[in-house]
Amino acid sequence: MTTYDAPPPSGSGPVTERGERTRRKLIGAAEAELGEKGFHKASISSITQRAGIAQGTFYLYYRSKEEIFRALVEHMNRTMRRHLSEAIDGARDRLEAERLGLGAFLSFCREHGHLYRIVMEAQFVDPEAHQYFFRSLADSYAERLRQAQQRNEVSDGDPHAQALALIGIAFFMGQRHWIWDQPPTDEDALATATAIIEKGLTPPSTRGGK
Amino acid sequence: MTTYDAPPPSGSGPVTERGERTRRKLIGAAEAELGEKGFHKASISSITQRAGIAQGTFYLYYRSKEEIFRALVEHMNRTMRRHLSEAIDGARDRLEAERLGLGAFLSFCREHGHLYRIVMEAQFVDPEAHQYFFRSLADSYAERLRQAQQRNEVSDGDPHAQALALIGIAFFMGQRHWIWDQPPTDEDALATATAIIEKGLTPPSTRGGK
Repeated sequence: MTTYDAPPPSGSGPVTERGERTRRKLIGAAEAELGEKGFHKASISSITQRAGIAQGTFYLYYRSKEEIFRALVEHMNRTMRRHLSEAIDGARDRLEAERLGLGAFLSFCREHGHLYRIVMEAQFVDPEAHQYFFRSLADSYAERLRQAQQRNEVSDGDPHAQALALIGIAFFMGQRHWIWDQPPTDEDALATATAIIEKGLTPPSTRGGK
Repeated sequence: MTTYDAPPPSGSGPVTERGERTRRKLIGAAEAELGEKGFHKASISSITQRAGIAQGTFYLYYRSKEEIFRALVEHMNRTMRRHLSEAIDGARDRLEAERLGLGAFLSFCREHGHLYRIVMEAQFVDPEAHQYFFRSLADSYAERLRQAQQRNEVSDGDPHAQALALIGIAFFMGQRHWIWDQPPTDEDALATATAIIEKGLTPPSTRGGK
């Protein structure tokens, strides 16, 4: 286990409403700057320029490029999980939640075109933040699956392994357009992946009494 | 489409048996050096030291660190696919091939501890090589699935999406120990992932005449 299981929000700047707005602007600018240029070529001065904020103000919120990078990875983790959580709210059961969740993840990828580059670069820039991104995602996913197993909505098995399998499917479906230079949305591909998930997770008792 | 669909083996050095041995030593040393240090901190002099080869000899085979990095990514692609292909040779059907293939992939990851770091760093160092790694893998996987669909061994659907889903499951199962700092092998986790794959791909006609 690392010491990175429950990070507080990074940065220690003002927490007034105006301060929160400034922080959001900086994170938004960091997403564009770090996503387009990568960590090593990105600069704090470009981030503040993009944000329309004086460079000195940056240091009221973050001590360094490393610190805003970590804050950005955490921000993308929280934003993505909130987006997914809202998308599956009201699903009748876990299988419907999976179907809605996969669609929501792919739409999140389209809106946040730099998601992969930022999260994967973290593996080299800040391995703890990278590990935290996937561990926190998989842990909360596994907990939902464990509860769904108890309701007999998904088949038995190690819920962490189920979570990894589902994250893996979503992760590669989100890279599909990039692997083959194809348009991001394809209903056939989405239906195929959804079918694997639904059939793969359906508990035996709901499949014709097997 | 990129111009990188069918790369010749990188490097243009001697092709005698002795030359081939030297090239293999260099690639083995590059795997260790680039995997341990990452691209930016790795050096040609360390690679040749590890290989026990004079530094000048390196340039008979590769022009630069960039070139041996690309050659290494291609080498890992070929080695991995050969390993998987041998593992599934003799499988009775595609589902058995999937089961054997997942186990073989995980054993390959254990033997090549730097696989992820090297392939994922390629995303930043040599995006074409990174794309080629996954595209070639997914294309040949999809072709095998397409043939298995014709034999009614797996369910219908976009074979490329099926390939991506299966690659995604294997990819994240191979990172399991790292995400949670756990031992690499866990029979429950493997059985759970295998069950998702088998149920997810089984064609309707073999599931109780549905």
